[in-house]
Amino acid sequence: MIVVMQHQASKQSVDNVLDRLSKAGFQLHISEGVSRTVIGVIGENTKERLAGMAVEAMPGVEKVVPILHPFKLAGRDLKPEQSRIQVGDLVIGGKEIHVMAGPCAVENEEQLLSVAHGVKKAGATILRGGAYKPRTSPYSFQGLEEEGLKLLAKARRETGLKIVTEVTGVEFVSIVTEYADILQVGARNMQNFQLLKAVGKTNKPVLLKRGACATFEEWILAAEYIMAEGNFNVIFCERGIRTFENYTRNTLDISSVPVLKHLTHLPVIVDPSHGTGKWHLVTPMALAAVAAGADGLMVEVHPAPSEALSDGPQSLTLDNFLSLMEQVRAVAHAVNRQLEKQ
Amino acid sequence: MIVVMQHQASKQSVDNVLDRLSKAGFQLHISEGVSRTVIGVIGENTKERLAGMAVEAMPGVEKVVPILHPFKLAGRDLKPEQSRIQVGDLVIGGKEIHVMAGPCAVENEEQLLSVAHGVKKAGATILRGGAYKPRTSPYSFQGLEEEGLKLLAKARRETGLKIVTEVTGVEFVSIVTEYADILQVGARNMQNFQLLKAVGKTNKPVLLKRGACATFEEWILAAEYIMAEGNFNVIFCERGIRTFENYTRNTLDISSVPVLKHLTHLPVIVDPSHGTGKWHLVTPMALAAVAAGADGLMVEVHPAPSEALSDGPQSLTLDNFLSLMEQVRAVAHAVNRQLEKQ
Amino acid sequence: MIVVMQHQASKQSVDNVLDRLSKAGFQLHISEGVSRTVIGVIGENTKERLAGMAVEAMPGVEKVVPILHPFKLAGRDLKPEQSRIQVGDLVIGGKEIHVMAGPCAVENEEQLLSVAHGVKKAGATILRGGAYKPRTSPYSFQGLEEEGLKLLAKARRETGLKIVTEVTGVEFVSIVTEYADILQVGARNMQNFQLLKAVGKTNKPVLLKRGACATFEEWILAAEYIMAEGNFNVIFCERGIRTFENYTRNTLDISSVPVLKHLTHLPVIVDPSHGTGKWHLVTPMALAAVAAGADGLMVEVHPAPSEALSDGPQSLTLDNFLSLMEQVRAVAHAVNRQLEKQ
Amino acid sequence: MIVVMQHQASKQSVDNVLDRLSKAGFQLHISEGVSRTVIGVIGENTKERLAGMAVEAMPGVEKVVPILHPFKLAGRDLKPEQSRIQVGDLVIGGKEIHVMAGPCAVENEEQLLSVAHGVKKAGATILRGGAYKPRTSPYSFQGLEEEGLKLLAKARRETGLKIVTEVTGVEFVSIVTEYADILQVGARNMQNFQLLKAVGKTNKPVLLKRGACATFEEWILAAEYIMAEGNFNVIFCERGIRTFENYTRNTLDISSVPVLKHLTHLPVIVDPSHGTGKWHLVTPMALAAVAAGADGLMVEVHPAPSEALSDGPQSLTLDNFLSLMEQVRAVAHAVNRQLEKQ
Repeated sequence: MIVVMQHQASKQSVDNVLDRLSKAGFQLHISEGVSRTVIGVIGENTKERLAGMAVEAMPGVEKVVPILHPFKLAGRDLKPEQSRIQVGDLVIGGKEIHVMAGPCAVENEEQLLSVAHGVKKAGATILRGGAYKPRTSPYSFQGLEEEGLKLLAKARRETGLKIVTEVTGVEFVSIVTEYADILQVGARNMQNFQLLKAVGKTNKPVLLKRGACATFEEWILAAEYIMAEGNFNVIFCERGIRTFENYTRNTLDISSVPVLKHLTHLPVIVDPSHGTGKWHLVTPMALAAVAAGADGLMVEVHPAPSEALSDGPQSLTLDNFLSLMEQVRAVAHAVNRQLEKQ
Repeated sequence: MIVVMQHQASKQSVDNVLDRLSKAGFQLHISEGVSRTVIGVIGENTKERLAGMAVEAMPGVEKVVPILHPFKLAGRDLKPEQSRIQVGDLVIGGKEIHVMAGPCAVENEEQLLSVAHGVKKAGATILRGGAYKPRTSPYSFQGLEEEGLKLLAKARRETGLKIVTEVTGVEFVSIVTEYADILQVGARNMQNFQLLKAVGKTNKPVLLKRGACATFEEWILAAEYIMAEGNFNVIFCERGIRTFENYTRNTLDISSVPVLKHLTHLPVIVDPSHGTGKWHLVTPMALAAVAAGADGLMVEVHPAPSEALSDGPQSLTLDNFLSLMEQVRAVAHAVNRQLEKQ
Repeated sequence: MIVVMQHQASKQSVDNVLDRLSKAGFQLHISEGVSRTVIGVIGENTKERLAGMAVEAMPGVEKVVPILHPFKLAGRDLKPEQSRIQVGDLVIGGKEIHVMAGPCAVENEEQLLSVAHGVKKAGATILRGGAYKPRTSPYSFQGLEEEGLKLLAKARRETGLKIVTEVTGVEFVSIVTEYADILQVGARNMQNFQLLKAVGKTNKPVLLKRGACATFEEWILAAEYIMAEGNFNVIFCERGIRTFENYTRNTLDISSVPVLKHLTHLPVIVDPSHGTGKWHLVTPMALAAVAAGADGLMVEVHPAPSEALSDGPQSLTLDNFLSLMEQVRAVAHAVNRQLEKQ
Repeated sequence: MIVVMQHQASKQSVDNVLDRLSKAGFQLHISEGVSRTVIGVIGENTKERLAGMAVEAMPGVEKVVPILHPFKLAGRDLKPEQSRIQVGDLVIGGKEIHVMAGPCAVENEEQLLSVAHGVKKAGATILRGGAYKPRTSPYSFQGLEEEGLKLLAKARRETGLKIVTEVTGVEFVSIVTEYADILQVGARNMQNFQLLKAVGKTNKPVLLKRGACATFEEWILAAEYIMAEGNFNVIFCERGIRTFENYTRNTLDISSVPVLKHLTHLPVIVDPSHGTGKWHLVTPMALAAVAAGADGLMVEVHPAPSEALSDGPQSLTLDNFLSLMEQVRAVAHAVNRQLEKQ
């Protein structure tokens, strides 16, 4: 951490800062620059300890500049090699790319089983489907809740697909954990810290979606909340950020794939359905994600998108999904990855 | 709602859309434009019902354009006159401007009482202070929890100030309701729909902070979640949005004051401390908020900002707060408002 | 165009709007909705003509909703098939993917020729290099100007590569046109309308970079300015948009590739160097762009990035560029494109 | 400037960096932190000189952190006292607040003179009006050009108001300088560096609008371009930034007033018309600007907004402008400023 003093800060104010930091046990390096004094602060956990000290509010201080990333467990410094997350017999973060596909919301048995069989046949290994739905308006369909979880479990029995589904509050962690193979934390809950702690206390893999306006650092710190409770099985899922552009529902930030792989050891997947909001953009963006190094995809598929209770405009038909999978297979191969275990 | 068909959409696809909408009970107006067919859709709750129908996913449809705002209870259409929210003997949304002041986090009795007496003397009517703190990093100070609530209650007994404090999860609604006069829902929880429903079931006024990337519409719909449960006592609090500019912690969107007053009947207050992140910007932005018509302010005050456990750089000293209040009084008077009941 | 009247707008104000639009020669469709009157406005060039009429400012009008995109020459409605832009014997927009590579700024003969030979050998077909440099600070290196153009011409003679270079003002169009094969309009000048008109009067292909906060619509309208002067040879270049995330220099919006190919008939290329600002992100994002359907890439290459006068941190070494090209070749093949003419 | 080395950077790479910086004449301070080596770099113009060195691209370097702001002439370090800009007998940046009012575009003599007399009577001191209009679409009205300048000059003769009007390209600097009292550089041209240099060579005050996605630093550096040519009479004009919110045309960033007054010695005015895009938001935001310390306002006024050729929806009628001025007068007084010279 670097403390930058103001132009012409008094000697007294510089001394006060030095005194305070030194009493707190930090080692200090003072640089008298041409126009400013700069203090280097050295020690363990400087960012957290200095945050608690509010040095920035001391007289004569212009700003405090962080040097290190504030995350630990998720970072490559601590664990340089890539993590592989086990979901039953599947491994996320290895050579295989896993595709999670299914409807936005579980609507009924027929819909879900028809999609489940279809996506399984096309090569998906994990079934997605919302039972508890966070919706912007209180007047929109809110999901089938436990009934939806039961249908997901039935689809798993029939197809062998793993199940990923969203948990929207601390009070649902226990019941969703009973049914799901992967717990999804949605974008709107990325900084619901109570929920992060609660899923951190389970032993299930957690799919952590990026908040619509979360920086990489905040997103990784959300993973850190889960890991700090003992659950290291976190999978990042990029699903688009909010920008000034509104032709697309969100701006899908494909760069999060190489960035998170650089900064952390955890797997990263991409959701081009929420990321774009338009079905005709899903396939090109899925291919882009795989080319950039994504460990998997999450794709909305619906037997009849125009009858979907949620997110129809961004859902693929089974035919379109089949075509997506064929193209993904080719691109995966080009970047030395593969869809199937061999 | 308007359905815009694609350029050269087939007659068959137009007919399919008309047929589906007509069966759903909507009244339709068809306009054959120069290059496109446009269908006006008329009926009750068109937005929600059409959302459920995913017309946008039907063949030949280019886009669906909403015409009406999707909120009801919060809107001026339903209730044209301004709402006044009663907090004990105070009224928020009337001629008086109420200032909520206090430390970011309750740290200990001495700190809290010293601030409480100071801000009361300067003219504040409500004491703010966090007992449960949502923090970006799991390694930062997380609040005193119930101990903090007890200190707030003690400060209320000693000063007569009302209490506003944050509730960070459904599991804390009951205990915070016991102590607080106003329940605060923080920016990160603005779309924690379980929490919104839970505070909607209490009879306490709710201070609803704007999410850092929430549109006006999403923010109003969050209020709608609370109101749909029967609690109409919602106070909006603008606290800055996230933009590309990072010299300030957030970009404080003062326009939300006249915009929300135009679209809704609920009171709007402004938090210039989180909105800027720098103490020297707090007073000018507080004055701007009052000039623009805000019904109140929320300001961080700390007896010794450079020793604060949280948000020191944006906290005012008691002296600076006193000066802020004097200037606010003058600007309030200039826009025909006042700080004190008369 | 749709005109939405306010809730309970008077009959008089509705009649005034109808009267004004009808006199302007538009055909009108009136829908009396449950809570509002909506007027469909039909005719040629409705958006421009209505913009000139400021109907939105008439009493009783709530808003005016555009239905059609405001661009014509660039749109698929007018010309459904993909445009192919001829640059000498190269074609941009066909099956071949073209890579434009070179230093950010032309610095001296040795640097430029060494890069030119290197990128040519690796498979690039076009040499990039700035002679006139737009720089945020007046104190940064501003380019070699005409001397730089001469070096580019020399590199073309020696390697056979085509030349693309930026024109930063109307006064330089004539001289840059003398030397370059493609005129580049930079992001900061995307709405320098005088410059757009000036390059529209030349017969050179124009590479039009996206402004850092330009919507797709504004970007396409910038192309429309060029095309309206008679020059239809416009190539879009996505180079990242400005968002709240600042770990990367910009957020590279890969979705602009399928979006612009959907809305327009013009080729789209991607610049992952400016789009990310970090050399280690360039290759994965280049692969993503090609997988998403880009017609080409623009990549910064420098013989010794740490000695570059501009943009060193985002420049590839020749070795890294060679590796990028090998991977691009594989991904191009996977999506049925190719690097070389066959 | 601080150079942060990577975790476990080799001694060799640290030595290379030290060697290079030391040869370049910098004084260096090395801090061996717990997990990283950090190098403090001291000297004149470190930012520019280091930018030219691309240290960030050297092996083993993680990042380079700037310490000082990169501007000089505009900054408070160099000139602590507030600048006052003389426009004829008016002073911008003193106790008086100056209001620049008039139509978006000069349309004809009758329109302009009617507005000019009206705003003069209401207390405006400067007439605004566009003769050269930068428009997003090539099909929109582009302004009356020199004819418009002549009408502005006529309005000045008749009313005594000063004239501010936009210059949209280097080729128009000379003619606009003939007629105008203040040269306006529009938001889209804020980084048209050729234009900045050209107005920097005149002796006219320059009103520099903030680019829609310009950071404070970039905006100040644009002023620095003008000042580096010898023209120190720069007035900043905040006119809203582009964010995710699109209910308002832009998000008017009122905090730019206290921020720029903190960082620079130049006057700052605010344009609430472009900043919001809706006439009913103009007055509250104008009051907010004045309360926050703005030195002036720029407001669009039109005798009949619904017949305006440009920006009607955000223009005030003369009656509404009169009411705005009365309220501005009261708020100005409350913050110890005034509208009229006394």
